[in-house]
Amino acid sequence: MSRYKLTLEYDGRFFVGWQRQNNGLSVQGVVEAAALAFRQRSVVVEGAGRTDSGVHALGQVAHIDLPETDAPERVRDALNAHLKPYPVIILMVEKVDMNFHARFSATERVYSYKIINRKAPLILDNGRAWWVPDLLDVKAMAMAAQCLLGRHDFSTFRASGCQAESPVRTLNSLTVTTDGEVVSIIASARSFLHRQVRNMTGTLRLVGKGQWTESDLRRALAARDRRAGGPTAPACGLYLTAVNY
Amino acid sequence: MSRYKLTLEYDGRFFVGWQRQNNGLSVQGVVEAAALAFRQRSVVVEGAGRTDSGVHALGQVAHIDLPETDAPERVRDALNAHLKPYPVIILMVEKVDMNFHARFSATERVYSYKIINRKAPLILDNGRAWWVPDLLDVKAMAMAAQCLLGRHDFSTFRASGCQAESPVRTLNSLTVTTDGEVVSIIASARSFLHRQVRNMTGTLRLVGKGQWTESDLRRALAARDRRAGGPTAPACGLYLTAVNY
Repeated sequence: MSRYKLTLEYDGRFFVGWQRQNNGLSVQGVVEAAALAFRQRSVVVEGAGRTDSGVHALGQVAHIDLPETDAPERVRDALNAHLKPYPVIILMVEKVDMNFHARFSATERVYSYKIINRKAPLILDNGRAWWVPDLLDVKAMAMAAQCLLGRHDFSTFRASGCQAESPVRTLNSLTVTTDGEVVSIIASARSFLHRQVRNMTGTLRLVGKGQWTESDLRRALAARDRRAGGPTAPACGLYLTAVNY
Repeated sequence: MSRYKLTLEYDGRFFVGWQRQNNGLSVQGVVEAAALAFRQRSVVVEGAGRTDSGVHALGQVAHIDLPETDAPERVRDALNAHLKPYPVIILMVEKVDMNFHARFSATERVYSYKIINRKAPLILDNGRAWWVPDLLDVKAMAMAAQCLLGRHDFSTFRASGCQAESPVRTLNSLTVTTDGEVVSIIASARSFLHRQVRNMTGTLRLVGKGQWTESDLRRALAARDRRAGGPTAPACGLYLTAVNY
C-alpha cells in the first residue's frame, strides 16, 4: 500500500459538498469513482475539510491509499483523466508516509470569503462571490474582527448540526481587506466549527453596514449562542484556500 | 430625446459578441431588445468596443437615445429588469450631452488579458482565462512588451478581417504582471485593431516561453505582416476593462 496526498481545486456549485451523500454528486464520491476506475479497487478518499454544497476549493487536501506504488505524476494524470467530466481537478499529488492523515495531521486550514460590494448584481462572479449591495465599512470590519482572534468558545458562530465535540477553537488570523469592489475575508485556524467562517462573515457584514459596533460583536461572541450571531453568509463566496501540515 | 451613457459588464461566453448578428445572441441585440421593451420604441445601442464572441467586459460603454427624460437610476433599473435572463448587466447610467458618442468620443480603451500559468487545467477560471501550462518568464514578457509602446504600424497584430482604414495605432501602455499563477497583460490605447490585444498576447507568450527574444518581437513588429506574428490568444482571457472619455 502507498499513500498519496492530493491537492484539489473544485467548483462547489456542481456538488452537494465534499462528503459522499445519497442525494447527489459529491467531490469525495467522484474522486473515489476515479480511483476505482484507475485501479479497479474501491478506495476511501479522506478530505481535510468537509466543505458544504456550493463552497469552492482552491486547495482542498485529501489522501488516498493505492495498492501499487506509482509515480505521483502518473497518479495525478490518471485520476484527472477520470475526473474530466466534473469541475474538479487534482492540482498536485505527493507520496506521503502511511501515518499522514489529510484530516487529522492538518495543523491549519485557511478559508477565504469573497464579497463583491457594489450596487449592481453580479455577472462574472455570479455563484462565486457574495453580492452585498450596501456600502461596507471595511476598516470597521477589519478592526472588529480582531476581537474574534485567539481561543474562544465559538458557539455563536456554530451551525446547529455541527458535530464537533467542543465549540472551542483557536482562530489564528482573520483579515478583512478590500481591492476595488472586492472585500476578502481570510480566516485561518487548526480547525473550524461547521459554518463558522460563513457565520462570522455574515456577522461582520452587520458591522460593515454600521448596524453593529465592535462591542455588539464582542457581546455576541460572549453569549455563546447561535441566536446572538448574525445571519449565515451564502456558500458561494467561500473558498477552502489551503491546508497546512 | 435624451442621451444616456451606459457602462456594462457581461460574460462573453454566452454571446456571439458585442455586435448584432444573424447567428445568435449579441450583447448589443439584447440591450436593444431591453430598451424596446422599456420604451416601446426601437433604439440603436452604440458601443465603444466591438468585442468578439467569448470576450468579456467589466466596463464596456455604450450610449442610447430615449424619447423621454428619465432619472438615470430608473433607466438602469428598467433596462436591467429586462436583461435579467442574460449574463449582462448595466452597472451605471449617466445622462450625457447629445454630442457624446460612446465610440467616437472615447479617448482610451483599456483591455486586460488574464493568463493562468500552471500545469493543471482550469476549473474555477475555465472560460474566463487562458490556460498556459508552460512556465512563463513574466519579466522577459514585460521587458519585451516595451518595444510595442507608442505609435506603430501594427499590421503584424491585425486580424485579416480588420476593417480599420489604417494599421497605425498608438499604444499608451502595455504591462505584464504576475500574482501567484495569474499573469495579467493590460493594454491601453485610443483604439485597437481587430484582435490586436489577443495577437500581441499570443506573441508575448512565445517570449515568455523563451522561444522568442525581444529582438524577434521587434523584428515581427517591423515586418508589418500578420504572418510574422505569433498565434492569436483565445477570446476567453480577454476583458474590456474600461473606456475613458
